Amino acid sequence: MSERVGIFCDTEFPREAAAELAAGLRAHRVLRPAVALRGNLAASQSDPAILEAEIAFGQPDPASLLAAPRLRFAQLTSAGYTRYDEPRFRGAARSKGLALCSSSTVYAEPCAEHLLALILATARRLPDCCEDQHQRGWHAAERRRQAFLLRGQTVVLLGYGAIARRLTELLAPFEVQILALDRAPRGDETVTMLSEEELDAALARADHLVDVLPENATTAGFLDARRLAKLQPSATVYNIGRGTTLDHPALCAALRSGAIAGAYLDVTDPEPLPPGHPLWDAPGCHITPHMAGGRNTEHVALVRHFLANLARYERGEPLRDRVV
Amino acid sequence: MSERVGIFCDTEFPREAAAELAAGLRAHRVLRPAVALRGNLAASQSDPAILEAEIAFGQPDPASLLAAPRLRFAQLTSAGYTRYDEPRFRGAARSKGLALCSSSTVYAEPCAEHLLALILATARRLPDCCEDQHQRGWHAAERRRQAFLLRGQTVVLLGYGAIARRLTELLAPFEVQILALDRAPRGDETVTMLSEEELDAALARADHLVDVLPENATTAGFLDARRLAKLQPSATVYNIGRGTTLDHPALCAALRSGAIAGAYLDVTDPEPLPPGHPLWDAPGCHITPHMAGGRNTEHVALVRHFLANLARYERGEPLRDRVV
Repeated sequence: MSERVGIFCDTEFPREAAAELAAGLRAHRVLRPAVALRGNLAASQSDPAILEAEIAFGQPDPASLLAAPRLRFAQLTSAGYTRYDEPRFRGAARSKGLALCSSSTVYAEPCAEHLLALILATARRLPDCCEDQHQRGWHAAERRRQAFLLRGQTVVLLGYGAIARRLTELLAPFEVQILALDRAPRGDETVTMLSEEELDAALARADHLVDVLPENATTAGFLDARRLAKLQPSATVYNIGRGTTLDHPALCAALRSGAIAGAYLDVTDPEPLPPGHPLWDAPGCHITPHMAGGRNTEHVALVRHFLANLARYERGEPLRDRVV
Repeated sequence: MSERVGIFCDTEFPREAAAELAAGLRAHRVLRPAVALRGNLAASQSDPAILEAEIAFGQPDPASLLAAPRLRFAQLTSAGYTRYDEPRFRGAARSKGLALCSSSTVYAEPCAEHLLALILATARRLPDCCEDQHQRGWHAAERRRQAFLLRGQTVVLLGYGAIARRLTELLAPFEVQILALDRAPRGDETVTMLSEEELDAALARADHLVDVLPENATTAGFLDARRLAKLQPSATVYNIGRGTTLDHPALCAALRSGAIAGAYLDVTDPEPLPPGHPLWDAPGCHITPHMAGGRNTEHVALVRHFLANLARYERGEPLRDRVV
């Protein structure tokens, strides 16, 4: 493509990533929001700059994407795309020939590593050891008896996108049984895919229940009291999807009654979790602050992922992480 | 083998494991210490029962093994075999036709899982999150910036036995570079093996330095101030070998000065680590209480490993985990 393409970008990156983006877009016309930059989550609802763009990168809101007459390809700087994940947006994007991509490839690796870190921390009793250290406690016999092998256990995955697929790869050497639920299986899954009718039986066998669900109309409160009640007392729940997909009071009750063994939450509802929230000290509940997708090279990786997709767009190749 | 073999066992197992051992040895003559059982680490130096045995299982001391005239096969209930790992014992065992086996196969899986749990806890800042939770802190931006991907990093292993081999398998999906030092490489290693001359250069590249060294005359204080000084400020040290292989004051100084980023110690010298020891609150130092080999099924696994080796012995096949 020889002519200069208008590329709208509403995200401000740290120095190194910004330099890499500028270098990668040297041949193009970069359109910045006319209004002052308001950070990653800001939407430039009626920003005139996007109206000239063929491509957008950042977090432009759905209405702006649809209003921009020349827009053909937009890439979000997040793995989540809740705001765009509804029939009206999908229909309008299809009509105007707009492809929407997420950055799920960028987040799959840290999220999968975070999940395996949490699962292994459970198996090796690391939070208990952390507490012990505060007390200068050396409880070798007790911790040895409580620890268990991940090898051979059963992992149930709610959602089977890029994160779950990478987690499946990381789990391969452990020879665990993996059962997964997904609303739209691609058919190339290497794990046992569950129908929603089969989920209850799978929950009853789960040692580790991993929620990687996106937030949309069908996932709100999906992991509710009824489903939590199917779990074994030895089971642990992990949520790195969205806080709204998990019923917090039901989880709290299950932890307090000993109906389940523990929970690791990287996402909560709301975020940050308020200081007085009962989940902070529910027994066996461990919080990480919506950081599963984080890594020191996050912004550079986002820029590289966009530039690689831009090259695909220019060559007319299929885009990666296309969600609409 | 039709005749009843005398099998000396000085270890008392919990109920389930004891029942499985009794069932497995029904056809044999089980010889118990004549003196009162003194636990796993007790040595029955001059116990008359072992003198009748052809096989021993537990923790009989080296002198007793050599004194027992009919003894052909002894299996330790530990992965470590420090007391037997010296030329005089090796020579005497060879002369009398005694094979000594460890239980390293039993401990390889939990130890490797423990190591990966610690390595991923480092990458995902889990100890920091543990502290944050105490303070009801939600430091998303900071933790995201600090987290890093394990994928593509460099892991240096000191010692390349059963634990390190299993860790190598668990690390395979992460595509890390693994460099290993071993006093007696077998030649079938799938990782880059280092000579002692090459170690210093490898230390300078290590993101994770894993000490799985056994305790013997050549390993005492192996990881000393000079070698620690080769590490990068971003490097983390792990020790699940033996506490004596790592110079504690030198480690403490390296942590306090910021010369290295952190340490995870499952073994210390002495054990338990005394309440006043400076390592308890050295910056970035995390302690687990010599539990890396532990798991809820430990004793049953020890019994099964012994019975499987006993079957090999009876069939004249090579024994597993033979160390002398």
